[in-house]
Amino acid sequence: MTRVTAIPTATISRLVTYLRILEGLETQEVGRTSSSDLAERAGVTAFQVRKDLAYFGRFGTRGMGYLVPVLKRELMRVLGLNRTWNVVIVGVGRLGQAIANYPAAGDYQFQYVGLFDVSPELIGHTVRHLTVQHVETLGQFVQTTPVDMGFLAVPPERAQDAAQTLVEAGIRGILNFAPTVIQPRTADRGDVADPGDEWRGVTIENVDFLAGMKRLAFYTLNPHLKSADLEEQE
Amino acid sequence: MTRVTAIPTATISRLVTYLRILEGLETQEVGRTSSSDLAERAGVTAFQVRKDLAYFGRFGTRGMGYLVPVLKRELMRVLGLNRTWNVVIVGVGRLGQAIANYPAAGDYQFQYVGLFDVSPELIGHTVRHLTVQHVETLGQFVQTTPVDMGFLAVPPERAQDAAQTLVEAGIRGILNFAPTVIQPRTADRGDVADPGDEWRGVTIENVDFLAGMKRLAFYTLNPHLKSADLEEQE
Repeated sequence: MTRVTAIPTATISRLVTYLRILEGLETQEVGRTSSSDLAERAGVTAFQVRKDLAYFGRFGTRGMGYLVPVLKRELMRVLGLNRTWNVVIVGVGRLGQAIANYPAAGDYQFQYVGLFDVSPELIGHTVRHLTVQHVETLGQFVQTTPVDMGFLAVPPERAQDAAQTLVEAGIRGILNFAPTVIQPRTADRGDVADPGDEWRGVTIENVDFLAGMKRLAFYTLNPHLKSADLEEQE
Repeated sequence: MTRVTAIPTATISRLVTYLRILEGLETQEVGRTSSSDLAERAGVTAFQVRKDLAYFGRFGTRGMGYLVPVLKRELMRVLGLNRTWNVVIVGVGRLGQAIANYPAAGDYQFQYVGLFDVSPELIGHTVRHLTVQHVETLGQFVQTTPVDMGFLAVPPERAQDAAQTLVEAGIRGILNFAPTVIQPRTADRGDVADPGDEWRGVTIENVDFLAGMKRLAFYTLNPHLKSADLEEQE
């Protein structure tokens, strides 16, 4: 395993796809797979599969392929899905409540430990066994409850400030559902090039509904240009 | 412009990213950009930007770069965002309601024309000016109202059947929010390799919350492996 300094996001997205395929194979009680089989199901080349996996070590035996449960377990480990993640949701409107109740999130040990909002109509109410708290209390909350990630489901104009609140509370992973780009900067400094220290090592991932709608628009106009892949390829 | 038979999904995802960047530049009243500037902002190479754009024609002037409003308008056209899309939502629970109220969807002329569910508690109620109808009436509905796309926000175990209903009603574009893979097959035939004719030319795109959570898990564990890109690169 070579020492790598960065891994393309597309590789991580494909690992997520391979994992989903392996889970499907396991459900169908298929015991063994190969890079060509995975490649075909993911719509990429076998070379790409091997290259993606090679970032993380050697998983198969040459000419023998991969054992489905072994490769699945290894990908779970690589992705960090073999441990519990304590998650808070900031923004408990319709979208935040949908996320709190999203099926299968629990299968991967994403564990909701706190819900935060600013609306008096929501604070104090119970959603999925948790009492919605004011977002101003997040700093105190993390003193007693370790939090690994924050899911942001606030309106777009609130997203930057809410992200700042998460980051100041020491939370290093943010999944942003708002249709806006979070900048790694301190709101009152506004300096993107030199964000505050609190942003060091913070990861922001986006779940962008609009991007999905736009891709769909393109392929609905151009169904003949659809490549055979599930999610993405190069 | 060479005749192409398929365009990588990653290219389409990047066009969506470039468009978002161009919108940001326009807001900042920046009039001109270049493939290196776009590349840096999107975290890909300038070669990649030029290659992605070259699928669709020539947009810039050598050595002069691109005019922001022109390239933005061209990408909107390529992606099919210069026209109105009539959309139905199937599944009007918390998630479906969140989607119906998702900010900015209207900016791109995704126009909700119908909401469908199976729950007696929802049918007949009004959500965002539309009356929720029983999904069994979808076939009749499309007789009088043209529908381009269906957004699926049903529980995962209902997603395949709901997709079948959309496809039988003649809808060719599906955006699936359920954490499950829709197979292009007729439910009662179960034959993936030879789906029913009604599936010909149907595009399915996925908005997968779990994939975002998994990517976030990886990068929260390994912040030093984060590449500098916004969304994806090769």
